Amino acid sequence: MTKIITISREFGSGGRQIGHMLAEKLGIPFYDKELIKMAADDIDIEEHIFEMYDQAFMDKHETVHDILTYTYEVPMSDQIFMAQSRVIHRLAQHGPCVIVGRCADMVLKDEQCLNLYFYANVKKRVQRLLALDGLPEENAKKVEQKVREVDQKRKDYYQYYTGNEWGKPKNYHLCLDSLKAGMDACVAAVTAYMAYLG
Amino acid sequence: MTKIITISREFGSGGRQIGHMLAEKLGIPFYDKELIKMAADDIDIEEHIFEMYDQAFMDKHETVHDILTYTYEVPMSDQIFMAQSRVIHRLAQHGPCVIVGRCADMVLKDEQCLNLYFYANVKKRVQRLLALDGLPEENAKKVEQKVREVDQKRKDYYQYYTGNEWGKPKNYHLCLDSLKAGMDACVAAVTAYMAYLG
Repeated sequence: MTKIITISREFGSGGRQIGHMLAEKLGIPFYDKELIKMAADDIDIEEHIFEMYDQAFMDKHETVHDILTYTYEVPMSDQIFMAQSRVIHRLAQHGPCVIVGRCADMVLKDEQCLNLYFYANVKKRVQRLLALDGLPEENAKKVEQKVREVDQKRKDYYQYYTGNEWGKPKNYHLCLDSLKAGMDACVAAVTAYMAYLG
Repeated sequence: MTKIITISREFGSGGRQIGHMLAEKLGIPFYDKELIKMAADDIDIEEHIFEMYDQAFMDKHETVHDILTYTYEVPMSDQIFMAQSRVIHRLAQHGPCVIVGRCADMVLKDEQCLNLYFYANVKKRVQRLLALDGLPEENAKKVEQKVREVDQKRKDYYQYYTGNEWGKPKNYHLCLDSLKAGMDACVAAVTAYMAYLG
């Protein structure tokens, strides 16, 4: 049975949490930000620089690229992506796991993975995030703006590193609306589907 | 529990067959071409003209549109779509069912539906169609061309009548690769997900 699960997700959809629930149910490791640390070890870059870069990519790609690349032949962004990709391959070879983000679906395209994409209506995602942070309704507009911004950044990141369109079904095996029937429903659907994989 | 299931599907993905399996498992009716007959009754158009039109739309939209519309104030294509939409609404009000195609997901957008989209790798769909028709591998190229043509027509039809992009996850609640884990896997995943719907 395929046990390497990659997860792509819209911001606020709960895809990360569903990944965690899946990992727990299947008794396999769950990776997201830990990847950064492991990748940093892999190419001997100080972890704080790595994290700074990683955050900065999400804030403004071009500027950080300009700042960090002048001392490297290969752009820093690409070095980091390649290092993370090596770590993802290593994890996949090591055994079953759940990997969130980092274009893992494309990095592992030749492996026997199950690629998942979680999404949901923007208004529902905003309500979920407001509830999670205990924020009143008056923050809805601001949160919605944040949701759209993060989605756009994830889309750009995916497009930049894979050349493919983020959120297009053909890149995944299952795409699930996480807030129509709830997170438990998603876990149930994915495990039911997986049971048939050779 | 939501029991009105709409199905959109890439050509050769087996989405229609999965719809049939779902209807059987849930003990509810299954509709596809029957809709045409019911819609014909609804607006008193001779069934054979209806079927001729419907086939012709798939062959070449413009010509048929030209031929059939000159006697109507509202274009024939739109009359038929509206009639089919009325039938779809009637079916949905009557009780649980599975409806394949005809933009039923958008026609029923205010109802409590579960909208599914089935897709699969083009090469795998070609192999499935060759096997279904007992055709040798040398027909693969021709079948692949047919697959791409029918997909394009479905995309155009959906775009024309709904203004939305066919095959974009946000239009559906679950998108499933039907040929990764097989049709039984899809039925299992959908029913597992449905079990959580209020």
